[in-house]
Amino acid sequence: MEKVDHIGIAVKNLDERISYYTETLGLKLLKIEEVPSQNVRVAFIDAGNVKFELLEPTSEESAIYKHIEKRGEGIQHIAFGVTGIRERMKELRDKGIRILSDEPNPGAGGAEVAFLHPKDSFGVLYELCDKSGKGDM
Amino acid sequence: MEKVDHIGIAVKNLDERISYYTETLGLKLLKIEEVPSQNVRVAFIDAGNVKFELLEPTSEESAIYKHIEKRGEGIQHIAFGVTGIRERMKELRDKGIRILSDEPNPGAGGAEVAFLHPKDSFGVLYELCDKSGKGDM
Repeated sequence: MEKVDHIGIAVKNLDERISYYTETLGLKLLKIEEVPSQNVRVAFIDAGNVKFELLEPTSEESAIYKHIEKRGEGIQHIAFGVTGIRERMKELRDKGIRILSDEPNPGAGGAEVAFLHPKDSFGVLYELCDKSGKGDM
Repeated sequence: MEKVDHIGIAVKNLDERISYYTETLGLKLLKIEEVPSQNVRVAFIDAGNVKFELLEPTSEESAIYKHIEKRGEGIQHIAFGVTGIRERMKELRDKGIRILSDEPNPGAGGAEVAFLHPKDSFGVLYELCDKSGKGDM
């Protein structure tokens, strides 16, 4: 795990929350994207050394919808930027960490992503996010 | 808000959780410190571009104790590194954001810190962390 790529934040209404980040906190909106495979609409905010990924559910099937139902809006995950995601998944499995999918899934910006079981990370949902060869977003 | 200084993570047992970050994730422990004014013992973990601040409550009066009682272990706050914390607090107040203290409080590493009301940040607890002139920790 070389660095944190982004921090995922569950929001009810993307457009309203973007204005908090840009107007109140003075941060820059990088882009907005829909990720149908995860049932979310996503805004990336530039926080200098990391990005905030604001996640609005587009369906009740979305993990973000369930997060908001159960815990309210707020921080949902921390994503490590990695290369060689399949090898990283295997290394973690070999250390006894459960990964929530057998294979990586498509994430925002063309990334491949996988999540660690939060019980194995003591309540934190960590994501592996591999964008090697997919641009810098 | 130029950058994220650290991500605060509430933990029940600092020593056990440090080994997850160092041995399983392969990250480096930077230092351990007690912050009596916040009733916490703190470990800083180097995550490359940001730090993880693992927070173990040392008293039932600690905000971290209450966080764990209510929500379990997990991510508790995101801290922006700032300079001129009093001016930043005033700017945010002028924009209608409530700050949880009238003045900055002492934080880990000799920093001055203040927290934004999480309701005004849509469920995220943001900290302002000013270490200007206090070293790089």
